[in-house]
Parts: sequence; structure tokens; C-alpha cells
Amino acid sequence: MTGKLTIWTYDWVPEGPRGFVRDMRLRWAAEEAELAYDVRSVPFEDRETNHLEFQPFGQVPFLMDGNITIFESGAGLLYLAHKNEKLMPRDSAGEAETLQWVIAALNSIEMVTVPWWFLKVTGHEDRGLSGWMDNRLAQLEAVLKRRDWLAAGRFTVADLVMADVLRVSALRAHGTRPATEAYVERLTARPAFLKAHSDQIAHFAAADKKRAKHN
Amino acid sequence: MTGKLTIWTYDWVPEGPRGFVRDMRLRWAAEEAELAYDVRSVPFEDRETNHLEFQPFGQVPFLMDGNITIFESGAGLLYLAHKNEKLMPRDSAGEAETLQWVIAALNSIEMVTVPWWFLKVTGHEDRGLSGWMDNRLAQLEAVLKRRDWLAAGRFTVADLVMADVLRVSALRAHGTRPATEAYVERLTARPAFLKAHSDQIAHFAAADKKRAKHN
Repeated sequence: MTGKLTIWTYDWVPEGPRGFVRDMRLRWAAEEAELAYDVRSVPFEDRETNHLEFQPFGQVPFLMDGNITIFESGAGLLYLAHKNEKLMPRDSAGEAETLQWVIAALNSIEMVTVPWWFLKVTGHEDRGLSGWMDNRLAQLEAVLKRRDWLAAGRFTVADLVMADVLRVSALRAHGTRPATEAYVERLTARPAFLKAHSDQIAHFAAADKKRAKHN
Repeated sequence: MTGKLTIWTYDWVPEGPRGFVRDMRLRWAAEEAELAYDVRSVPFEDRETNHLEFQPFGQVPFLMDGNITIFESGAGLLYLAHKNEKLMPRDSAGEAETLQWVIAALNSIEMVTVPWWFLKVTGHEDRGLSGWMDNRLAQLEAVLKRRDWLAAGRFTVADLVMADVLRVSALRAHGTRPATEAYVERLTARPAFLKAHSDQIAHFAAADKKRAKHN
């Protein structure tokens, strides 16, 4: 780690996504690992074009660490995890187990839950994604029934990203998965999560005040 | 690397997915890096339950390397890449760049293209996913217009997984993206891809013969 990290997010977002913007993942990881970081902003307004040199899809977050800039929250998490044992064990079996569950969160769970949620919030009927998602979530429930942590018998960045994927309200309200619900509650009760969450809420609330003053 | 790798896939799949089953990604990576590997099979028939101890979603592939077993094709790719410079540069900037583009393929592109494809093949109308996908693919086209490789100015595992995500026929037929099409053609013309592809086709064709003999 070369000096202080910078986590980049939007300067403002509407109320809906507050607490869920993906810089949460990097804030949370930095808090867990007790890494110093600043938070800086790109404008939400022309986000599709204003920071393409750092994030080619116009999204946030991206992470800066000395001369390294890295986008994709999942990549930022793995980048931090490779440098910090609190986020991922250093032995190769523990690393592999953590890595596989990080990717499972992003590519087996979120790949279904985000499009499902997207169709839901844009007012479209479910078109077959529910069955696929329910199957995946049931398989994950079976795993979480048997253990508290996804990898290496301890908290890792895999739990962080999986809990972040699963804590979406619409998802928690859809179906009954007691082990998953207990897992999400346990993870989102961690001090590092709560700090990251209240900091993100405060970041966007401060932008509201600034906007009000200018109008 | 402790001895020979084992790539696990299904013993058989229907014609449709042949050439696209995700063990392709690991075969291709192993071919690029000239790593010795065996391919072994779990039964397709009761795949939802027969290998949950190795792959909790009942999918393939999973990778074995000595005492390490790792599921999720994306995780297997990163696992191999961390051990092999042909797949990912060893300097931290090159690693970060490769990592971010691997995750972009899995979590920004495939997260939209696979559900889009799923709705299409299950006979559902497009329900808003096309607009989202077209936007992402246009942003990627803008990147590929400017360079031949996603990361570090050379072939990396990021190109391997991005090309594997993009080479799906339905996707290539949807819209016009000349730089992306040239990229996919260039990547899928690599000898390592062609070897992996014909090996997968042969693996499933051999299963057909075995089935025919038993019937």
C-alpha cells in the first residue's frame, strides 16, 4: 500500500440508491482492514461521460492507490484483499476459497439478482428470472445453513461482497431463507459496515445541503 | 503449481452449449500458459446434486491443483493468472489492470448479456435489458476502438474471458460493433482457443458415442 487510498464515488445520487452505491464495498473493506482512505467525487449529472478515462462504463467506484487506479468494485476488493490479511488469508487454500466466493457473489448470484431487481424496479413483469434466481438462492441457503462464513472459517472479503449483494431489500422480501437472512443481519451489524454505511449516507446528504444553498 | 491440473466439466451436454461450456475458459487459459492438465467429468444428468461438495450451484467447471479445489471459471482464471505471467503481468499496475478487466467481463458485461440471452432463449420478450446491454456494449466498443488488448498492452486473461463472454452468436448478431467483432475474431483465432474448442467438442462427441453403444 503506497500511502492513503482514494475511493471515488458520485458527488450526489437520488435517495433510492443511498446506502447501496458500490463505493460501500470499498469503504467497508477499508474500514475492516483499518486502511486510511479519502473519498472523492465525480459529478453524478454527466456521469456517462465525465470520468470515462477512469471508469469506461461511467460508473463508480474506482480506487486510487499511489500510481494504481482500479475500477470495478469487485476488482478493488480483491486488490485490497491481496494486500491485507484481514480481508483474505495468506495461505493458498484460504486465498483460493476466498477468491472463488468473491467471484460466486459477482458472477453466480449478482448476475441473476441485479437483472431481476432491474426488471422489477423498471416495472416489468418477471420473465423467468425468478425461477433461476430462486434456485441459486436456495443453493446458497444450503451452504449458509452449514456455516457462518463462506471461506476459510472466518470473515473474509467474500462475506463482505456476498452480504452486499444479498442485503438489497427487494431480495430479502422475496422468499424465505432463514440462514441467509441471519447471515446478512450478522454481516451488516459489523462496526465496519455501519461506519461505511453512515459515512455514505452523510456524503450524499451533505450534497443535498450544498445543492439547496445554490438554488 | 503442484503437479498436473485437473479441469472438471460435465460428461455430456446437449449440442447447443457445446463449445461454450465454461470449462472452455480454463482449457483455453491452460493452453495459453502451456500448463499440463487433465479433463475429468461429473455426470450431467443429476448435475444439480451430484457434485455440490465441489460446486455448490451444481455447475461446471471446477479446477483441482494439488490440494486446492476452486470453482467459478472466473476464479479459476485468476488463480491460474496469479501463477503464470503469460496470463497476467507480474507488476502491480499490470496486475490491477488485468484484474479490473476480468471483473468487468464478469460483472459489468456478462451480468447483462447472460440474462439477456436467457430471456431470449427461453422465448421471453426483451423487457428492458436490451437498452442496458446496448449501452454497456457501446461503451466497450469505444474502448476496443482505441486498443487491441484490454490490459497492459498485451494478451492477458482479461481478453480471454471478455472474448469468451462476447463470442456468443446471439450477441454478435445483435447490433453492429466493428471493433468488438474484430476483437472477438482475433481472440478466437488464437491457437490456444482453437485447441481448447476442438477438445471440448471432441469430449462431448465421445460421450455421444458411448451413449449410443449403451442404447
